[in-house]
Amino acid sequence: MDKKELRDILTDVSNGKLSVSEAELKFKLEPYTDIDCAKLDIHRGIRQGVNEVIYGASKSAEQILSVAENLYKNGQRMVLITRMSKEAAQVVGEKLPLFYDEVSKIGIVGEKKAPYGHGKIVVATGGTSDLPVAEEAALTAEALGNEVVRLYDVGVAGLHRLLNNMDVVMDAQVVIAIAGMEGALASVVGGLCDCPVIAVPTSVGYGASFGGLSALLSMLNSCASGVSVVNIDNGFGAGYIASMINHQNWGEKS
Amino acid sequence: MDKKELRDILTDVSNGKLSVSEAELKFKLEPYTDIDCAKLDIHRGIRQGVNEVIYGASKSAEQILSVAENLYKNGQRMVLITRMSKEAAQVVGEKLPLFYDEVSKIGIVGEKKAPYGHGKIVVATGGTSDLPVAEEAALTAEALGNEVVRLYDVGVAGLHRLLNNMDVVMDAQVVIAIAGMEGALASVVGGLCDCPVIAVPTSVGYGASFGGLSALLSMLNSCASGVSVVNIDNGFGAGYIASMINHQNWGEKS
Amino acid sequence: MDKKELRDILTDVSNGKLSVSEAELKFKLEPYTDIDCAKLDIHRGIRQGVNEVIYGASKSAEQILSVAENLYKNGQRMVLITRMSKEAAQVVGEKLPLFYDEVSKIGIVGEKKAPYGHGKIVVATGGTSDLPVAEEAALTAEALGNEVVRLYDVGVAGLHRLLNNMDVVMDAQVVIAIAGMEGALASVVGGLCDCPVIAVPTSVGYGASFGGLSALLSMLNSCASGVSVVNIDNGFGAGYIASMINHQNWGEKS
Amino acid sequence: MDKKELRDILTDVSNGKLSVSEAELKFKLEPYTDIDCAKLDIHRGIRQGVNEVIYGASKSAEQILSVAENLYKNGQRMVLITRMSKEAAQVVGEKLPLFYDEVSKIGIVGEKKAPYGHGKIVVATGGTSDLPVAEEAALTAEALGNEVVRLYDVGVAGLHRLLNNMDVVMDAQVVIAIAGMEGALASVVGGLCDCPVIAVPTSVGYGASFGGLSALLSMLNSCASGVSVVNIDNGFGAGYIASMINHQNWGEKS
Amino acid sequence: MDKKELRDILTDVSNGKLSVSEAELKFKLEPYTDIDCAKLDIHRGIRQGVNEVIYGASKSAEQILSVAENLYKNGQRMVLITRMSKEAAQVVGEKLPLFYDEVSKIGIVGEKKAPYGHGKIVVATGGTSDLPVAEEAALTAEALGNEVVRLYDVGVAGLHRLLNNMDVVMDAQVVIAIAGMEGALASVVGGLCDCPVIAVPTSVGYGASFGGLSALLSMLNSCASGVSVVNIDNGFGAGYIASMINHQNWGEKS
Amino acid sequence: MDKKELRDILTDVSNGKLSVSEAELKFKLEPYTDIDCAKLDIHRGIRQGVNEVIYGASKSAEQILSVAENLYKNGQRMVLITRMSKEAAQVVGEKLPLFYDEVSKIGIVGEKKAPYGHGKIVVATGGTSDLPVAEEAALTAEALGNEVVRLYDVGVAGLHRLLNNMDVVMDAQVVIAIAGMEGALASVVGGLCDCPVIAVPTSVGYGASFGGLSALLSMLNSCASGVSVVNIDNGFGAGYIASMINHQNWGEKS
Amino acid sequence: MDKKELRDILTDVSNGKLSVSEAELKFKLEPYTDIDCAKLDIHRGIRQGVNEVIYGASKSAEQILSVAENLYKNGQRMVLITRMSKEAAQVVGEKLPLFYDEVSKIGIVGEKKAPYGHGKIVVATGGTSDLPVAEEAALTAEALGNEVVRLYDVGVAGLHRLLNNMDVVMDAQVVIAIAGMEGALASVVGGLCDCPVIAVPTSVGYGASFGGLSALLSMLNSCASGVSVVNIDNGFGAGYIASMINHQNWGEKS
Amino acid sequence: MDKKELRDILTDVSNGKLSVSEAELKFKLEPYTDIDCAKLDIHRGIRQGVNEVIYGASKSAEQILSVAENLYKNGQRMVLITRMSKEAAQVVGEKLPLFYDEVSKIGIVGEKKAPYGHGKIVVATGGTSDLPVAEEAALTAEALGNEVVRLYDVGVAGLHRLLNNMDVVMDAQVVIAIAGMEGALASVVGGLCDCPVIAVPTSVGYGASFGGLSALLSMLNSCASGVSVVNIDNGFGAGYIASMINHQNWGEKS
Repeated sequence: MDKKELRDILTDVSNGKLSVSEAELKFKLEPYTDIDCAKLDIHRGIRQGVNEVIYGASKSAEQILSVAENLYKNGQRMVLITRMSKEAAQVVGEKLPLFYDEVSKIGIVGEKKAPYGHGKIVVATGGTSDLPVAEEAALTAEALGNEVVRLYDVGVAGLHRLLNNMDVVMDAQVVIAIAGMEGALASVVGGLCDCPVIAVPTSVGYGASFGGLSALLSMLNSCASGVSVVNIDNGFGAGYIASMINHQNWGEKS
Repeated sequence: MDKKELRDILTDVSNGKLSVSEAELKFKLEPYTDIDCAKLDIHRGIRQGVNEVIYGASKSAEQILSVAENLYKNGQRMVLITRMSKEAAQVVGEKLPLFYDEVSKIGIVGEKKAPYGHGKIVVATGGTSDLPVAEEAALTAEALGNEVVRLYDVGVAGLHRLLNNMDVVMDAQVVIAIAGMEGALASVVGGLCDCPVIAVPTSVGYGASFGGLSALLSMLNSCASGVSVVNIDNGFGAGYIASMINHQNWGEKS
Repeated sequence: MDKKELRDILTDVSNGKLSVSEAELKFKLEPYTDIDCAKLDIHRGIRQGVNEVIYGASKSAEQILSVAENLYKNGQRMVLITRMSKEAAQVVGEKLPLFYDEVSKIGIVGEKKAPYGHGKIVVATGGTSDLPVAEEAALTAEALGNEVVRLYDVGVAGLHRLLNNMDVVMDAQVVIAIAGMEGALASVVGGLCDCPVIAVPTSVGYGASFGGLSALLSMLNSCASGVSVVNIDNGFGAGYIASMINHQNWGEKS
Repeated sequence: MDKKELRDILTDVSNGKLSVSEAELKFKLEPYTDIDCAKLDIHRGIRQGVNEVIYGASKSAEQILSVAENLYKNGQRMVLITRMSKEAAQVVGEKLPLFYDEVSKIGIVGEKKAPYGHGKIVVATGGTSDLPVAEEAALTAEALGNEVVRLYDVGVAGLHRLLNNMDVVMDAQVVIAIAGMEGALASVVGGLCDCPVIAVPTSVGYGASFGGLSALLSMLNSCASGVSVVNIDNGFGAGYIASMINHQNWGEKS
Repeated sequence: MDKKELRDILTDVSNGKLSVSEAELKFKLEPYTDIDCAKLDIHRGIRQGVNEVIYGASKSAEQILSVAENLYKNGQRMVLITRMSKEAAQVVGEKLPLFYDEVSKIGIVGEKKAPYGHGKIVVATGGTSDLPVAEEAALTAEALGNEVVRLYDVGVAGLHRLLNNMDVVMDAQVVIAIAGMEGALASVVGGLCDCPVIAVPTSVGYGASFGGLSALLSMLNSCASGVSVVNIDNGFGAGYIASMINHQNWGEKS
Repeated sequence: MDKKELRDILTDVSNGKLSVSEAELKFKLEPYTDIDCAKLDIHRGIRQGVNEVIYGASKSAEQILSVAENLYKNGQRMVLITRMSKEAAQVVGEKLPLFYDEVSKIGIVGEKKAPYGHGKIVVATGGTSDLPVAEEAALTAEALGNEVVRLYDVGVAGLHRLLNNMDVVMDAQVVIAIAGMEGALASVVGGLCDCPVIAVPTSVGYGASFGGLSALLSMLNSCASGVSVVNIDNGFGAGYIASMINHQNWGEKS
Repeated sequence: MDKKELRDILTDVSNGKLSVSEAELKFKLEPYTDIDCAKLDIHRGIRQGVNEVIYGASKSAEQILSVAENLYKNGQRMVLITRMSKEAAQVVGEKLPLFYDEVSKIGIVGEKKAPYGHGKIVVATGGTSDLPVAEEAALTAEALGNEVVRLYDVGVAGLHRLLNNMDVVMDAQVVIAIAGMEGALASVVGGLCDCPVIAVPTSVGYGASFGGLSALLSMLNSCASGVSVVNIDNGFGAGYIASMINHQNWGEKS
Repeated sequence: MDKKELRDILTDVSNGKLSVSEAELKFKLEPYTDIDCAKLDIHRGIRQGVNEVIYGASKSAEQILSVAENLYKNGQRMVLITRMSKEAAQVVGEKLPLFYDEVSKIGIVGEKKAPYGHGKIVVATGGTSDLPVAEEAALTAEALGNEVVRLYDVGVAGLHRLLNNMDVVMDAQVVIAIAGMEGALASVVGGLCDCPVIAVPTSVGYGASFGGLSALLSMLNSCASGVSVVNIDNGFGAGYIASMINHQNWGEKS
């Protein structure tokens, strides 16, 4: 979509020939930029509310930089990069304004959005070993413009640690429950609170945890209603969905 | 909690000694009724917003009737029963006002709630074989007070069937994407719309679908953001979460 | 071992030629009776403290009767039969004094032992669907001479049901924690009490519970210490071990 | 087969004593050369249409060189080597005319065949991480004499990227659909085009992708007809089959 | 697409304003008929070359009849129905001209297409137990207009049975290799012939065949090139792909 | 092979033109009879020492009868049929001289061979539930001409039952160790005796036995040398191999 | 709990207003210390009888030191650290009095408790490769105050090694049976002794041991009663439970 | 067993009070030497015919040396060591006369036995990548005193390579069939020859070979009779069993 087309649409809208929702629809079906190694989804921000995010795990530092630069120059104010190595962060950081967190391997180019939405997102973990995934979730949610409350190491083996923080959980808009091993945290939290719970199984554990399978199955079979699940170690996905729920219908008249 | 305690709390609230939210918190931590085969969670409606639901699969007709009667007489206006056999439905229907749907095996005692919330819940399926799960989701959401739009048989093998209904999908508050076999519907829908997608893998298929495992893994690995997953064939869970999201913050000033 | 040999040993013991423990050792290494379909371990009661138990699942009514009669006539006062069909119970009941419970499919020929031991065995379940397994555990423990407290339907989705019964749990000698689906009960109980917890995963559930695999993995990965696990649906095994622990060193000077 | 036998057969053919297809049959049942570590299938080119290919993954540089040299000197004009390390490529490259691609680890000794056949082979990928497998497929097809069109990063999360290239897909003789994670690309492509689709699951992903299992099951359960599947990451196999289909009956009178 | 649009397109084509292939493209993106339980893909025949096929396994006799009638009356000359029960066949057979095969559970409404294409499709099986899947493949291919040669019970345990039929295999355009248990047939056939091999694992076997998993993995790991795989017991899929390959480019000038 | 060819070969042998072993080789590469549903391997007895055996599980009574009659009339003195239903046995028994065992579902047409070979085959089982598999093994070995010793219900939970029979085990030519559940019998026997042990995992058990998987893995990982394994419940296979070993080199000069 | 509350409780106890067991209950529901990366469960020793243990596997040397110091300074006399790297041990050892065992990676800060309890804990292993897990179990039990007898390399392949040590096994209060590969040791020991057996599967083995899965399933399916199982390689868990059983009711009047 | 006991037994034998076989039995139940890390089974050679073998994979160079020295000095003429690292080989080689093969990681201390037995052991492999496992099998069999014929790279993708060597296969006493990927070699060989086939699945392959699982299942499901299976990559086990069969009854009068 070039500037001309954009101007025409906007003119039609201002003239009343096109309603806002009709115009918005037009933006939802379009384009991408073809750079060497990827087809960048420039308008995802319009279509889905959140701009394209870079999955850094299987890309070289140069590929990440190339994609990030392209998005940033196309006017995307904040570019989120997940699973970026320290090495890649150094390469990107030399060219672009980058915040980088070593624990979660999250990189943020540009400015975080200011927090908005219906309330707070609580990120709870079973143990300290779940921290990298938890920070991926928390930083993702913060970058997308949410207030995040961290509630770490409240696993069910010492239930009082969770019960003593019930006010925090009760006050949440969305809870992200992160746990490895037997993943029981999701069920316990799901039974206690009245908001959606996004469960993230982690690969923490050994032996019969089978790389997170134990926690994954546990969470899928949660006897508590209101719990849905994302992939093992997918902190980003949980943060993204939590943000989506927190922002939905925000600012509309209800 | 006996009546005295209830009265005290309410008096304190009316006197201003207790704020509403402080009082609400008190109700969130309490009680259950112990009948012969179960401990009924009478106050779940206060604590979690939705009353206790009966999982009918492993209960006798008499057990279901006993639990349903007890809940209904304790003032629960609507009792939802999932996976109830036709035989059990006949037993319950003789004593209580029951709506029963044979396809989804959903039973509803009492009156459905009138629809409210931010918008519509779209229930989409890959094929006609996913119908029982889809109706479980749809009827659950309707019983809990939501407007539901059914969009069945829009699997990715004939993509135009989905694309021709993009307006329906774009207009949803939540999309429940239900599919067996390769479960690709969740990813395609997830990439097209800007609201949370609850994915439900179904056990439809044969051979290497391994009872729904194929669709489950597929949905957990969705390359589209905004997709979270519930257990195989768990239509109820998806309807419940969708309702929770649709009702959240409804009626509050924003 | 015939009566002569037995008398000789006992004479030697009374003469001081043989210490008690030396004599006991002799009984530990011996015999069995060869009936048509089995080699009956007559002296298991001496060797292991509990007599041979009949696993009824894969035996005909006639085979069960034959084994039970043989054991009973060899002086075993109580014969425990697990997973016995109603039909087999009728056949056995005509010839031998039989107690039979349809829910758990447990049969007991002869007299239950009177309760003894250090304390009580608590049998806790996540839901009402776990009842058959729970009763198998409870009746096994009772038959072997233990006081059993049943604490059913205290799953983690309604945590207050368990917390309101903490005194029962705290007072236990052993807790048998029985749950299907995500099996979180074992971890929560394991984190709260100070006695051994025997966890029994059940095949209750559907979809990704994979016949009890989910609960099994969950319990094996319990983040709470003090939890060990038996096979899926193995209520008998849990009751047996709990009894063993409760009886150990009972009556000795300490 | 020595030269004499070959000459006899050819003479018989030229005399009409032997039809071409009868003669061809004779070549299909023969020989191999026994070198130190392998039995080389010299006549595979005659029997199957494509010469023996070297699977480099578990062979030393010396073994690869030895096999390649032997084949090349036996008159095989082009020797394809898959999964060859950079180190092995250096060793082989010093003795033989070698093209080597680091991304796909494909090596080609000698001259590529000129493209022929019914049409084009389209190699489509879900993401940029699938590149090594995609290049293995593309270079294999090119080496065997096919025109290849690359269509990378058209995963279903941004469906417009694929829909905008429908003309390319519609024009294909065979499509190779390569994707990791949920592998939905195969089904979507399979539902849109009218030629055979060879699906290649990749090990791209993490957590519940279980090393490509998720994509593999997804593709095997494709609801679109016309899709068949090869092993995880088997770009070579897909390129080989695509070439076989593209070349089949080429040049015959139809 | 209404009649007007259709007429316009055809007029443009006859006027030369639109080439045939441009016009064909227009038909490839369209429509379906919405009946009660399904969205029928009327134009699939134009888009993909083969009309919609009915998967009968999870549909009632009435649903199958309804879909079949609708397709048949919309001008589809032959309607293929897979996995149709004997009962459903009776219901459909009363209203529509139906051929039904009990072994494979294939139903064909209307006339089979006359055989055409480059050559023959060979359907080979490892044992007599694979017959239902083999007939599903063979009848599918025949219904779609192919000459089929059946080569049953040529499993590798008696290799001479296959070797004595090498001429049949060598003469094939496509070979469909069907086997359960260890599925070795696909590799052996794949190594002997020079045409594409579509491998179909079957669920024949017991114990460690795990419902066809053994044969599936075996075929995916085939050491022979040219072998691609479809789902366990998916005879239809194999017949469909084989037909696609046999018909491709048929009748074109080459 | 027709009678003429047979006579020629035999003549050549008697003339000394052909040595016995050269002649034997000729018989090893040939023929089969094509009846309606199968290609019967008539000369397997010559090639492999044991005639073709009928796997009855997936064949109709008529198919079994047809195959058995054909083999019997082609001069095969004994036809072994495995996994034959009682119904099929009645059909076959009316036309042919049949021995049938209901427990193992083994049928034997004609005369058992008289026992020969180096020694005895011991069939040991862990429990009484393993009987059907054990009898399949024992009757197979007996039918093929071996002396069999049955040693049932000697599982490791009561080790003295096995140790008291060490003389039987020590005296064996081959031991077939059959066990379900944890399959420990194979390792214990393997560590005690000095002859080959063929281990047969059975599907006896429940829960985490996963249909015999537990015993299968256990036996494959046996810490005792000399143990090899066949498929779950494959009593026939074990009996066949044991017979092969027992008969090998029998009657030769050594 | 601050000092005042503690004093009040103790005063009430000394005044007889509060019984000891009532007072003990109060301590069971409380507190934790929130340090940077964890919420330390200070009172676990009161609630569960054993103080908090540090799982060192996923913590940095600094984190371990911080937690250990905090616990040690809060009056915990012995701090057990599992799976601590040699590097971490050096860091911790510089600041705190540390015993460290390289084989099991167990660290013990402070003084081991003096042995007490009903009897001995026997740690038996199948082979020498199980040593690291065995030492983790043995040192855990010793640190918690138990007499431990090591019985290594008594696997079932050489049964006499175990049988010759029957007196040791017979004399045990609890047996910890540790084995990889087929894990048969647990069943054999379980069938011989009359005390609880805690089975620990190890990841020792290769191929079809699948990282300990084989031994795990084997032990869960043990045909011997009295065997319960912990996670693969979880020596600590076994030592902890064994200690719990050995100490239970110790010092009470019985 | 001390020298005195040995002398007594031997005296009794020479006096005729004890038959040879009675005496032999006494030796079969005894002893081991307890060195620091292991209980060496000194008399295994008497009991099982083959002396103790050292599994080198999880032992330090020092442990291997210690065990090997101890066995060698106790009069064991040949000590076989499997999976020994090159480093360990250097340590052992300095003190003891060692043959070491780097490919198979087999070490042999002392003199190989001279070949004896009924015939030859054929070691066949599917590809060159199976060499390390094949050499482990071959060297084991040679060390134990067998003539071994190597038949490498005869996989089923080029069947003529195997068929051209049928004389070798036909002449075997035992065939060891080694293959990764789809493992079809075992079935093809099993169908062709008349001697026991020991199948060894290897971990050669990638993707859906799942570390040898594919070949393992394939071999367990072999449609050919006479095939038994050992663990993935267990060349030693196969060589051991083959030797056992080849040596059995050798030298006896028959």
